[in-house]
Amino acid sequence: MEDKAQIQEAIKTQGEVVRKLKSEKASQEQINEEVAKLLQLKASLGEGDGKHQFVLKTAKGTRDYNPKQMAIRERVFNTIVGSFKRHGAETIDTPVFELKETLTGKYGEDSKLIYDLKDQGGELLSLRYDLTVPFARYLAMNKITNIKRYHIAKVYRRDNPAMTRGRYREFYQCDFDIAGQYDAMIPDAECLKIVYEILSELDLGEFRIKVNDRRILDGMFAVCGVPDDKFRSICSTVDKLDKLPWEDVRKEMVNEKGLSEASADQIGEYVSMQGGMDLAERLLKDQKLSQSKDACDGLSDIKLLFTYLQIFQVTDKVVFDLSLARGLDYYTGIIYEAVLTQAGVSLVSAEGQNGAPPEESVNVGSVAGGGRYDGLVGMFDPKGRKVPCVGVSIGIERIFSIMEQKAEASAEKVRTTEVQILVASAQKNLLEEKLKLVTELWKAGIKAEVMYKKNPKLLSQLQYCEETGIPLVAILGEQELKDGVVKLRAVATREELDISRSDLIGEIRKRTSEA
Amino acid sequence: MEDKAQIQEAIKTQGEVVRKLKSEKASQEQINEEVAKLLQLKASLGEGDGKHQFVLKTAKGTRDYNPKQMAIRERVFNTIVGSFKRHGAETIDTPVFELKETLTGKYGEDSKLIYDLKDQGGELLSLRYDLTVPFARYLAMNKITNIKRYHIAKVYRRDNPAMTRGRYREFYQCDFDIAGQYDAMIPDAECLKIVYEILSELDLGEFRIKVNDRRILDGMFAVCGVPDDKFRSICSTVDKLDKLPWEDVRKEMVNEKGLSEASADQIGEYVSMQGGMDLAERLLKDQKLSQSKDACDGLSDIKLLFTYLQIFQVTDKVVFDLSLARGLDYYTGIIYEAVLTQAGVSLVSAEGQNGAPPEESVNVGSVAGGGRYDGLVGMFDPKGRKVPCVGVSIGIERIFSIMEQKAEASAEKVRTTEVQILVASAQKNLLEEKLKLVTELWKAGIKAEVMYKKNPKLLSQLQYCEETGIPLVAILGEQELKDGVVKLRAVATREELDISRSDLIGEIRKRTSEA
Repeated sequence: MEDKAQIQEAIKTQGEVVRKLKSEKASQEQINEEVAKLLQLKASLGEGDGKHQFVLKTAKGTRDYNPKQMAIRERVFNTIVGSFKRHGAETIDTPVFELKETLTGKYGEDSKLIYDLKDQGGELLSLRYDLTVPFARYLAMNKITNIKRYHIAKVYRRDNPAMTRGRYREFYQCDFDIAGQYDAMIPDAECLKIVYEILSELDLGEFRIKVNDRRILDGMFAVCGVPDDKFRSICSTVDKLDKLPWEDVRKEMVNEKGLSEASADQIGEYVSMQGGMDLAERLLKDQKLSQSKDACDGLSDIKLLFTYLQIFQVTDKVVFDLSLARGLDYYTGIIYEAVLTQAGVSLVSAEGQNGAPPEESVNVGSVAGGGRYDGLVGMFDPKGRKVPCVGVSIGIERIFSIMEQKAEASAEKVRTTEVQILVASAQKNLLEEKLKLVTELWKAGIKAEVMYKKNPKLLSQLQYCEETGIPLVAILGEQELKDGVVKLRAVATREELDISRSDLIGEIRKRTSEA
Repeated sequence: MEDKAQIQEAIKTQGEVVRKLKSEKASQEQINEEVAKLLQLKASLGEGDGKHQFVLKTAKGTRDYNPKQMAIRERVFNTIVGSFKRHGAETIDTPVFELKETLTGKYGEDSKLIYDLKDQGGELLSLRYDLTVPFARYLAMNKITNIKRYHIAKVYRRDNPAMTRGRYREFYQCDFDIAGQYDAMIPDAECLKIVYEILSELDLGEFRIKVNDRRILDGMFAVCGVPDDKFRSICSTVDKLDKLPWEDVRKEMVNEKGLSEASADQIGEYVSMQGGMDLAERLLKDQKLSQSKDACDGLSDIKLLFTYLQIFQVTDKVVFDLSLARGLDYYTGIIYEAVLTQAGVSLVSAEGQNGAPPEESVNVGSVAGGGRYDGLVGMFDPKGRKVPCVGVSIGIERIFSIMEQKAEASAEKVRTTEVQILVASAQKNLLEEKLKLVTELWKAGIKAEVMYKKNPKLLSQLQYCEETGIPLVAILGEQELKDGVVKLRAVATREELDISRSDLIGEIRKRTSEA
């Protein structure tokens, strides 16, 4: 398509870019990216010459998961899905792409980050940007009014990737939502209970779950004299309070958003408040705030929520925090966000800026977030029928990053298989005997391997166990075969004992049971 | 973008298309598709008028999975992954899209079925078409020479969908591959063992695994006088033998491919042969075939393979079948394919033409296929270093279809959750007591639910259990609370008994243990 001379020119220019970056000691990530471009240019030229050179890389902003990363991923998923299932959730799946117009108008100015598919004839398609819009489309399309479902899947955003800091263009989301017309705050409280369970079980360190309500925010803005048309804009400024000091937020309100100083100061008083049920009770009697019906509705619900949270035994981590705003437009009631508060982990997360924000507004340390959105499904229903929903999104990429760093730091090796035993031999010509034994073990459900060599050295068989963490070795030799026994060796202690073939399976189970 | 009048014209035309199809009693699938186009046109007009109507559908050739389908999918995955893990496989994951040029030149004329992403600046990307090419790219990129991995993920083909027959544009592939330089036929035999285990455990009915070797085919063509440059072409004709009678295949060879009648007849003799190790031994002594070194290498390996298969106790289902050809170019040694042979299932699969072919060549009833491909990774390596590979692809969409039909046909209800018990009440105002109890149960790891209503009727609570298959109900009432007991009800038998709170958890575990 392009002229050869043009490409050669581009190669020259790109070569200079790379040289310059290297001389400037730019980040390896940046250099790699530019080198990849250079290689791609060279490859496109090579093609013209009849020889093809592949550029061996994944698409920008994406990564492969190697077996170790997959092992960590599986562990995290198991914990999370375990909690979802304990609470009776079903799961669904939706296609990776949707009709373009299904996504249109749902994400505001972030719509520019949507991946479109090429028009190859037929429908115009885009890759999903989150799991919430496909969920709403699914409910409306199937006229479902009640469901408790989780959905774990990858979503796509043409964002500026920062892969060293864990921000990708392809990343997992992990959503749990309860749709249906129910009595107030019961499903909402269960969402918080689930966040509490998951973060506790994953053992990520200390955390706190901040809770607020959109109606309290709106009521607060109203009684503080914020004009109606500035609610959203002021709300998004309040949302910055987790990253900026109040002084800066106040400045933005007054100087950029044109709020009066008096209004700003009143807001400032409210958003500094944190507490529990007591705070909700106090604010219900607050002369100013109690003027707003919205605020009173929100405060009563917060009170009710805390009643249920007490029963669920999670109030030690939940804080009613009037500064919590959250970015998304579609929330209509309670909102919440879980943050890690432990120093060590905070450092990790300050550095590892979240690649998979639970939603748009990501704080340093935020690992889950959600809220009530009673209007979204109605946007898809031809008759506008509403399906009230409340849900939570677990910031699973952030959690992967933390778990990976923990694994790196810990002495314990991450195993990538669950193999319990290697069937080995000390002498030559025993392949068939080994295959016989491994067949018996597989039949009994034992996870077992044999090396794919006819006559491997015993040492290399033992080394393989060390490397891959296989705890046991069954060693066969002429003598053992004659005696009808197997030499069972524990890799860690190097202890060996002869055990009869008939007792072998029981012994393996006993030694490798996970209880 | 388009002129309003133009759209209105298009709506008129499309309306006629729909009317015509309806009058012709076309398939519902076809009608739905055209109606969707009509709605989309109307919607695009609606947008111009300021009111927007969503087209509520998934992209052509794709589907959502509802909770019931997901439950079946999970069961199938668990069985398959269980076998992979028993054999010590790791897992990896790759991005859903690759650089376009990574896929270029790997799929022959099927390349036109690749989904491209829109050029939004940056790299040119395409959705993955299978899992084998990304695997080869992964190995070459990371210079991995040894791995035993499985990968279950969705792939994308802009094929003509036939959704009523289970053929989709987005579908799962499920691949297991062993890469590495090993002694002959040991990993190859393990692949067959795994197919055997999976198909047996899934209980899909009788099956057979056909085995052949590319070198035997090539040798056979050579000794039968097929010109070198016609090997591939004649091979693809042989591949049709599972759908066409020999007469038709012979006709194609002679009339279309220009093979001599004598050659065709010689091939005809060979491809009618089926057997086991004995056949390999006989053919090694075959005057003609033994002239070909390729054929002898292949036959010796088949012999060795059967030695291992005997030890693995799978020879009752494995047939050495000289008519098995398989479509893909990249195979270099042994090839195999598993087919379901039971009448009932064959009918199902004749109707439900496979949506997720293990690979290009799909037979009626084919549920797994694979082979050895020692050259593919080298195509990606800058220095052409080869990594020998052998693998198998489980035709998982076909298996889903069969399992779904089995579930439909069976009286047993597919549960979409694993909830063991519903915490219910017979009287009003016991919500908090129910929440207390369900909290205790969750803490003990019991999967439990409570309805999200303050005062649901006992009947509706019991109905909920019937509908969702929850086996137990814990019924609370004033009297039970006073006595420190719970009324435990078995939903199926309606038997009830009072049990002390302290014994409840043990009793639930006992009654719902899966052993």
